[in-house]
Amino acid sequence: MAPQRKLRGLVAATITPMTQDGEINLSVIGQYVDYLIKEQGVKSVFVNGTTGEGLSLSIQERKQLAEEWVDKGKDKLDNVIVHVGALSLPESKELAKHAAEIGADGIAVIAPCFFKQVNKDALISFLREVAFQAPGIPFYYYHIPQLTGIKICAEELLDGIKDQIPTFHGIKFSDRDLLDFGRCVKKNDKGQFMLLYGVDEQLLSALTLGATGAVGSTYNYLGKANNSMLEAFASGDLSLAKKYQFHTQEFLSFVTAQGFSVAHTKAVMTLISGIPMGPPRLPLSSVSEEFIAKVKAKWESMKHCPCS
Amino acid sequence: MAPQRKLRGLVAATITPMTQDGEINLSVIGQYVDYLIKEQGVKSVFVNGTTGEGLSLSIQERKQLAEEWVDKGKDKLDNVIVHVGALSLPESKELAKHAAEIGADGIAVIAPCFFKQVNKDALISFLREVAFQAPGIPFYYYHIPQLTGIKICAEELLDGIKDQIPTFHGIKFSDRDLLDFGRCVKKNDKGQFMLLYGVDEQLLSALTLGATGAVGSTYNYLGKANNSMLEAFASGDLSLAKKYQFHTQEFLSFVTAQGFSVAHTKAVMTLISGIPMGPPRLPLSSVSEEFIAKVKAKWESMKHCPCS
Amino acid sequence: MAPQRKLRGLVAATITPMTQDGEINLSVIGQYVDYLIKEQGVKSVFVNGTTGEGLSLSIQERKQLAEEWVDKGKDKLDNVIVHVGALSLPESKELAKHAAEIGADGIAVIAPCFFKQVNKDALISFLREVAFQAPGIPFYYYHIPQLTGIKICAEELLDGIKDQIPTFHGIKFSDRDLLDFGRCVKKNDKGQFMLLYGVDEQLLSALTLGATGAVGSTYNYLGKANNSMLEAFASGDLSLAKKYQFHTQEFLSFVTAQGFSVAHTKAVMTLISGIPMGPPRLPLSSVSEEFIAKVKAKWESMKHCPCS
Amino acid sequence: MAPQRKLRGLVAATITPMTQDGEINLSVIGQYVDYLIKEQGVKSVFVNGTTGEGLSLSIQERKQLAEEWVDKGKDKLDNVIVHVGALSLPESKELAKHAAEIGADGIAVIAPCFFKQVNKDALISFLREVAFQAPGIPFYYYHIPQLTGIKICAEELLDGIKDQIPTFHGIKFSDRDLLDFGRCVKKNDKGQFMLLYGVDEQLLSALTLGATGAVGSTYNYLGKANNSMLEAFASGDLSLAKKYQFHTQEFLSFVTAQGFSVAHTKAVMTLISGIPMGPPRLPLSSVSEEFIAKVKAKWESMKHCPCS
Repeated sequence: MAPQRKLRGLVAATITPMTQDGEINLSVIGQYVDYLIKEQGVKSVFVNGTTGEGLSLSIQERKQLAEEWVDKGKDKLDNVIVHVGALSLPESKELAKHAAEIGADGIAVIAPCFFKQVNKDALISFLREVAFQAPGIPFYYYHIPQLTGIKICAEELLDGIKDQIPTFHGIKFSDRDLLDFGRCVKKNDKGQFMLLYGVDEQLLSALTLGATGAVGSTYNYLGKANNSMLEAFASGDLSLAKKYQFHTQEFLSFVTAQGFSVAHTKAVMTLISGIPMGPPRLPLSSVSEEFIAKVKAKWESMKHCPCS
Repeated sequence: MAPQRKLRGLVAATITPMTQDGEINLSVIGQYVDYLIKEQGVKSVFVNGTTGEGLSLSIQERKQLAEEWVDKGKDKLDNVIVHVGALSLPESKELAKHAAEIGADGIAVIAPCFFKQVNKDALISFLREVAFQAPGIPFYYYHIPQLTGIKICAEELLDGIKDQIPTFHGIKFSDRDLLDFGRCVKKNDKGQFMLLYGVDEQLLSALTLGATGAVGSTYNYLGKANNSMLEAFASGDLSLAKKYQFHTQEFLSFVTAQGFSVAHTKAVMTLISGIPMGPPRLPLSSVSEEFIAKVKAKWESMKHCPCS
Repeated sequence: MAPQRKLRGLVAATITPMTQDGEINLSVIGQYVDYLIKEQGVKSVFVNGTTGEGLSLSIQERKQLAEEWVDKGKDKLDNVIVHVGALSLPESKELAKHAAEIGADGIAVIAPCFFKQVNKDALISFLREVAFQAPGIPFYYYHIPQLTGIKICAEELLDGIKDQIPTFHGIKFSDRDLLDFGRCVKKNDKGQFMLLYGVDEQLLSALTLGATGAVGSTYNYLGKANNSMLEAFASGDLSLAKKYQFHTQEFLSFVTAQGFSVAHTKAVMTLISGIPMGPPRLPLSSVSEEFIAKVKAKWESMKHCPCS
Repeated sequence: MAPQRKLRGLVAATITPMTQDGEINLSVIGQYVDYLIKEQGVKSVFVNGTTGEGLSLSIQERKQLAEEWVDKGKDKLDNVIVHVGALSLPESKELAKHAAEIGADGIAVIAPCFFKQVNKDALISFLREVAFQAPGIPFYYYHIPQLTGIKICAEELLDGIKDQIPTFHGIKFSDRDLLDFGRCVKKNDKGQFMLLYGVDEQLLSALTLGATGAVGSTYNYLGKANNSMLEAFASGDLSLAKKYQFHTQEFLSFVTAQGFSVAHTKAVMTLISGIPMGPPRLPLSSVSEEFIAKVKAKWESMKHCPCS
């Protein structure tokens, strides 16, 4: 495997822009890339994940989107990680192969979650079969037990994982269990893994324990404040870092209280970035006008905050 | 829409036979059809559902299987219902269109379950878009809230459903909430819906309330005993019906205590029918030899039971 | 142990009447007894259970209530079963001893539910220690896993239970798992146990499988319709029995849609019986006037129903 | 209210020592106090909580234990907080009054958790009625939604809480939701609340966000290492603080993998402190000899660790 650019800092879990008819809208990806870089200081993306409604898209659509992100991100983005997880192993393999062919910087896979009786060995076998279709690029496991219902400790999974999956590079760790996360960090004594935390609203607590980066949907529109938090933390100014975390918590807490799903994320991003993300695809439904008005008012009230 | 053969009695949720490599094995479907009819007295099937690992297959595989069942079932089976549910709406639509084209007797759709914030209107819109791709054949909703996490009452869904989905024919009701089920029966005063109960081990309680039929995995190998139960019930002999229910409960309770998943179902069916169902596909894993030995002993001990 | 009157038919899980200050109001118990007998045809009660807010009362209050029910029910009620379950074993034992002393017809105990890691042997040991304080009266286990979170199969618990607890008489089975319930019925081949079903809104399905009776909160105000259902079922008229079940389902379904807790039960009972049940005790809170108005309108609209 | 000693640093959630018969064993409390102070550097205790099997004890036993801790802790412990929560409001009030009378330094109350339909206003009313029985001492809310099933945000509860409960002093926050915790810290801008974190194995992440102290069962035997972590954190040495956190995580992760309940905590404490804690009371059951042997070996292997 060729040497890889290390994945550091923030990774935006990209939203999939759609037309009013619920078709994917590739035309704004270029603008989206520029926005992330210039306005949010975010140079890595995680495409076709939960935020991107990846599992609501057809295989063909997922390929098109991946191609567009790789293409528009060329010479601009540091990393385009393509999520290729699917309930069906053959489809996941097909997507992995495709991602490698188009020059993605890595692939990621969520635990297939329709059946809940998945054990550790079977999960690793599943991941390995997918990873083997893209032998030249880094592989990431997308750990999100709350959503999948597959409650296998990330730490256990790391045991001997490189022997099973030589391209294994790290974890998108989207869980609040910081005992499990701390154990992963402990295991990462040679820095062999990227440990990307995925519960945005409490990133600072994971940084403290040793997160090497972060992947999440809120870095689409709160990238700047989070980058400031990363800098403050890196320079040892925990007090300032906390100010940034509390700032983003205030906004996210407000949004969450209204109900927070991918549909809400799309609306928030449209509002803040000005790029039309469109409605979500069924089975998700559009948010209310009332939600948008409330969030807009909250956002306006917060944006002149000194730590924003 | 052309007149339809009514769906009555038992419907076997079919298992997908696989080779040792986890590839689908179409070669035994013909034998499978004959076994269901001759040995179990079951003349209707529900293909590519949960038991059939439908969501673990690729779209192409699902089409091939559907074709094979329709083809081999021709002039033999009364109904071949094809489950076309998927997380992705475009894929579900594609499968629905295909099922209609190959002459399936109906289609069924499970609630897309990756996102949990699905409301009733969005669910109906999703189902409608799929149903519209197969305007000439009956549509069934596959209600299994325990598995999907989408807890929308079946009764609520029935409200005005024919206006939304003219091909709507009924529900595979796989839940223990018999208040909801009873309310569906009450709503079915003109016999406009098929109410197919889907918790096999307690079918008798749903028959009492007015189930018009049953769909489940255990009718693959316990069809005969269940048909006897249906007859006893129809003739008003509740006491005999109970004997059959307790008989199947004894076996299923034994199997469940060992752990019961689609992997176990495949092994049990191979054992009882003699038709090789093969291992499950990843992320499921094969059952132990110990499980097979235990179940075999239990089955042998029960099969000379007078009510078997 | 002296011969016991068998527990048959409906048992009302009694509500605890309270004053506006949340103190127990013993003054209406006599009227309550007469109402159950005359208006609802219910002659057995289950005191200080979930519906009775038993665990929200002090030990002293539970004793007073038990005494009042035994006293006012004398020569009128067939059975006064006192629930003596508590999180604390010494308190549960004290209540059991007291119940025996005042002449209760039986005691019942729920699984202590604060800790969730309770295994079968420990649960039986707990129950046994309580039962031993009341060696002359029947003991019932109150099985309600959905509420307690203690998921031990009732069937497993019955295994050899008489050896462990000689006064064991039966189960209040408040769960929708009718495989487990059917297995209990099968084990009850000598009629040694009372199997009292406790999910009122689907009682008919449990009768079909062999329930010997029923305990629940709705028999306080829907006793009459349920008694008619029991009679129809006993006489073999399943069709009529269904009418009664659907009738009570219609009302309960309506109430449930508004939110259904003990607070709601108190309000419904006050409305229907005219006996002031008062507000619930904290941490429960009173229902809204809007709820009462809606339920009243529904009740009025249903009470002239021929099968009511 | 008289000025209060501020609650800082570690608070041990005390275990209740029992005899082999499951009776409380007051005779070792004095020794227990000295052990906490001398061997663990812990000078505050939280009595009769979850770890103390508080809800498994009778009211009389809870009073005796509280008295013993206050008595033996006199002039030695900084704070003896007595948990007085109960399912029953009158019992909780009685315990609160008693705690105040015997000179406890504060009281704490868990949400009453038998009924799950508890709303914020009702919860606050419940807490207030208890707090009013002990108007001269600090009141703490014990927030542990995972165990109680009462999912009311701590942050919401803090809103205007001092108006409702003038003695309100803080929260034992036993949850992994660090968005909610961060919001509590933000609200604590005047330092009016003690925010005591209660998920021991990830204390460092909560310190980062602004926890003012910690309450937990593991400080009984890991107090020393945690005190070292607090010091390292206070002096700005995050790297050293992490070493201590990873050290305690290693042990707790090992124990958790064997199954971790109050029964296990009692065995671990007996093993490490040498003070006989005895078995747990029913419905909990004793741990296996195998568990004790494994934990002993692990503990021996870790105790010479430089950061221990």
